[in-house]
Amino acid sequence: MSQPFVVVGGDAAGLSAASKCKREDPEREVIVYEKSEWISYAHCGMPYYVKGEVDSLGDLLSLSPREVDERGIDLHRNHEVLSVDPEEQHVRVHGPDGEFEQSYGDLLIATGARALVAPIEGTDLADVFTMHHMHSTAQLRAFLTPPDEADESAFETDYVDVDVTEYLDREPPTTAAIVGGGYVGVEMAEAFRSRGLETHLYQRSDRPVPPFGDAVGQRVSETLEEAGVECHFGTAVNSLEGNGRVDRVETDDGSQAVDLVLVGIGIRPNTQLVEDTGIEFGDSGAIRIDEYGRTTVESVYAAGDCAEKTHTVTGDPAWVPLGLTANRAGRAIGQTVAGDPEPVGEIAGTAVLKAFELECGRTGITDFDAAREAGFDPVAETITAGSRSGYYPGNAETTVTLVADRETGQLLGGTIAGEDRAAIRINTLATALESDMTVSEVERLDLAYAPPFSPVWDPLLVAAKVLRGTLSDWRSN
Amino acid sequence: MSQPFVVVGGDAAGLSAASKCKREDPEREVIVYEKSEWISYAHCGMPYYVKGEVDSLGDLLSLSPREVDERGIDLHRNHEVLSVDPEEQHVRVHGPDGEFEQSYGDLLIATGARALVAPIEGTDLADVFTMHHMHSTAQLRAFLTPPDEADESAFETDYVDVDVTEYLDREPPTTAAIVGGGYVGVEMAEAFRSRGLETHLYQRSDRPVPPFGDAVGQRVSETLEEAGVECHFGTAVNSLEGNGRVDRVETDDGSQAVDLVLVGIGIRPNTQLVEDTGIEFGDSGAIRIDEYGRTTVESVYAAGDCAEKTHTVTGDPAWVPLGLTANRAGRAIGQTVAGDPEPVGEIAGTAVLKAFELECGRTGITDFDAAREAGFDPVAETITAGSRSGYYPGNAETTVTLVADRETGQLLGGTIAGEDRAAIRINTLATALESDMTVSEVERLDLAYAPPFSPVWDPLLVAAKVLRGTLSDWRSN
Repeated sequence: MSQPFVVVGGDAAGLSAASKCKREDPEREVIVYEKSEWISYAHCGMPYYVKGEVDSLGDLLSLSPREVDERGIDLHRNHEVLSVDPEEQHVRVHGPDGEFEQSYGDLLIATGARALVAPIEGTDLADVFTMHHMHSTAQLRAFLTPPDEADESAFETDYVDVDVTEYLDREPPTTAAIVGGGYVGVEMAEAFRSRGLETHLYQRSDRPVPPFGDAVGQRVSETLEEAGVECHFGTAVNSLEGNGRVDRVETDDGSQAVDLVLVGIGIRPNTQLVEDTGIEFGDSGAIRIDEYGRTTVESVYAAGDCAEKTHTVTGDPAWVPLGLTANRAGRAIGQTVAGDPEPVGEIAGTAVLKAFELECGRTGITDFDAAREAGFDPVAETITAGSRSGYYPGNAETTVTLVADRETGQLLGGTIAGEDRAAIRINTLATALESDMTVSEVERLDLAYAPPFSPVWDPLLVAAKVLRGTLSDWRSN
Repeated sequence: MSQPFVVVGGDAAGLSAASKCKREDPEREVIVYEKSEWISYAHCGMPYYVKGEVDSLGDLLSLSPREVDERGIDLHRNHEVLSVDPEEQHVRVHGPDGEFEQSYGDLLIATGARALVAPIEGTDLADVFTMHHMHSTAQLRAFLTPPDEADESAFETDYVDVDVTEYLDREPPTTAAIVGGGYVGVEMAEAFRSRGLETHLYQRSDRPVPPFGDAVGQRVSETLEEAGVECHFGTAVNSLEGNGRVDRVETDDGSQAVDLVLVGIGIRPNTQLVEDTGIEFGDSGAIRIDEYGRTTVESVYAAGDCAEKTHTVTGDPAWVPLGLTANRAGRAIGQTVAGDPEPVGEIAGTAVLKAFELECGRTGITDFDAAREAGFDPVAETITAGSRSGYYPGNAETTVTLVADRETGQLLGGTIAGEDRAAIRINTLATALESDMTVSEVERLDLAYAPPFSPVWDPLLVAAKVLRGTLSDWRSN
């Protein structure tokens, strides 16, 4: 009888691996340790729960512990894995009843990411929130809910009680500050504005959502401002101040009184557990893996936000912590562990974002420095074109940037922003990247045309046509 | 001085070619003959003009004769080309001032398609319409407009007056029949219902929109019925009856009183002009061309709805008359004629359709007989999955069918239907087809995930996963 498959971390990657392994090899013992009491929760849905579009905290959970049990997985919540001993092939675990050792045949590190702590004073004050844990998410929603609209069911789940009484009883805030203009910052701006809060967004750089590039950043800026968000770009927050509870934000431009602060300045791979085990890390700080998700240490796998993956465009390792690739890698590792090796797949860095009514997407390598580092000579063009036939109602200006290699014409990446079905269009580019298409090949794609959905020349085709022209001009000079 | 580039037909393919040639080679004389008084009009927009979503007839025209003039193109409307003499390299033209000969250096046949005439009696009665010409489209809109809402500006264009007085003065119809359940039939059902007409749709086969396959056809059926369209599937119309004006539709099931009939049973390549010129035709009846759009006769090109194109999946010639590929082929031929050869591109057969709020898409080879004829052994799976995260408002059931070759796993085609951004998702499959991707490769695509736009596993990925399972099961048995 083989030793168990032990999984550290009970979210997307970990539970996908455990479930797949158990399904393929029902005899195998599969044990999952989760540090917190929460499993399988949708990070990406948290802003919409705070906003109130998602009714209940429980809606964010895709699996309950009971469902995990029913799959035959031995799940232990509130169990923290303290150390890994690859020589002896066991882990040391701290649970409610004390510490113990568990040996493994295969081990999966699926410890995810942790929110970056802002290097500023005052983040430990009360009413300073992050959007990385269910408890703080629930507290924030409770805080935003007027006492007369309080609905207990919004905070119930199948299996965890969240105590939000203190926040439910307080007067709702009227002014919020957001530190960081990335995904979380932009999504939370929507949540705060929809609840009528005066909202200040602070971002060190000159544009929000840097991974989406300048053209999308510009449109997101305009959207935020139209929605009444007070944007402070190029502005670092020096400190959060208050007496126990935060009550103001200090910047070089002055002081802003606030009732709450949301800090969302990014995440980092959560890899402390395996730092002294001989497991190697990539330049990104995430765990290096091979095409089957194996770390550099025998029988130890890694998946999800704590691990790197091979980038489709560069062929190099990259760290892009997102939900689909975490689920997919976990599932593949579960299958591999069960004896049927399956590659974890590559990442193209595809991401989409809703900024109020603006839909944004990005995929591939769009940053020129990153492209040069990977050996490319990047050229880009940005166009704006209609999303539908000009005469059809609802036609919306759609901004597309395409980046290609000057020498080969290979598509390296792209971004898109617009209010009409823009985000989902990024999948076309992600698919083109997977096939190493050139810009000319993209230009010749037989894409859909019908007045309600697209003009004759889809904005992606217009962008490809323009970029191809630029590449040709360069060659003929 | 080289002989002129002569173009027969002033719509998408013809004017794209003329414009591109003139831009690349401004010295070249470019002459366009258009049989009617209309140029460059959007067929695909006609149903929305009749519905009233598009305000004015002029909105459907993408270029006015003046704009064509400004491009330096010698445009002659109301000039019919009667014959082509490839030996002498001239065409015979009938214009308002009589007949004349025009010699050419290069000739483009861009004569488009013609509406199929239904093989039933009574289609020549008054108030029987097709959706293939601007005049009948304008008359139909006028007929549907209540006299007190008549707005002359809806019938004005920059350069053609349309006399619709007779129809504007009449009482609007209350009952309409549609013969044919293809694109036009479904789109016109929406137009008629939105104007409150009792609407009967007759279709010989058991499902509407056959090129979209059974799963989409089923959803379109349901949508039509929910929208109050009386669907008569599997029902052939025997005759249209009336005394001068149509007043009833006869089928084996009985007689239906109507005020108007819309016939949309398909189109055929309009190739009569070149039938005795030595130009070869494909099995489809459309003109055979090579990768640069050249016919089998020296210096004669063909593009648009009258010509075949190479199918991306089969590599064989196919006839798929749609707007983007017509524009693209015309543009490429214009460039080739100007001295810089450019392939016309292939077709994947990508098409999208709006059926009330249902969005439908199809691409590639989805019909099993067609797949077998091309040498494949087709396998298909159909799934239904959410368009967004389950907890996010607006999540809509999306039906996807994927077809693959059993032996190689190569993706052959797919269809999709759903109410939330379903149509535009077909572009991902069209791109995958262009790269000869296998179902496994599609399953591993890094597609976008964010709760408002897609669940973790996009419906396309779910379909690929299921179909891949089916293919694997087959291999292991």
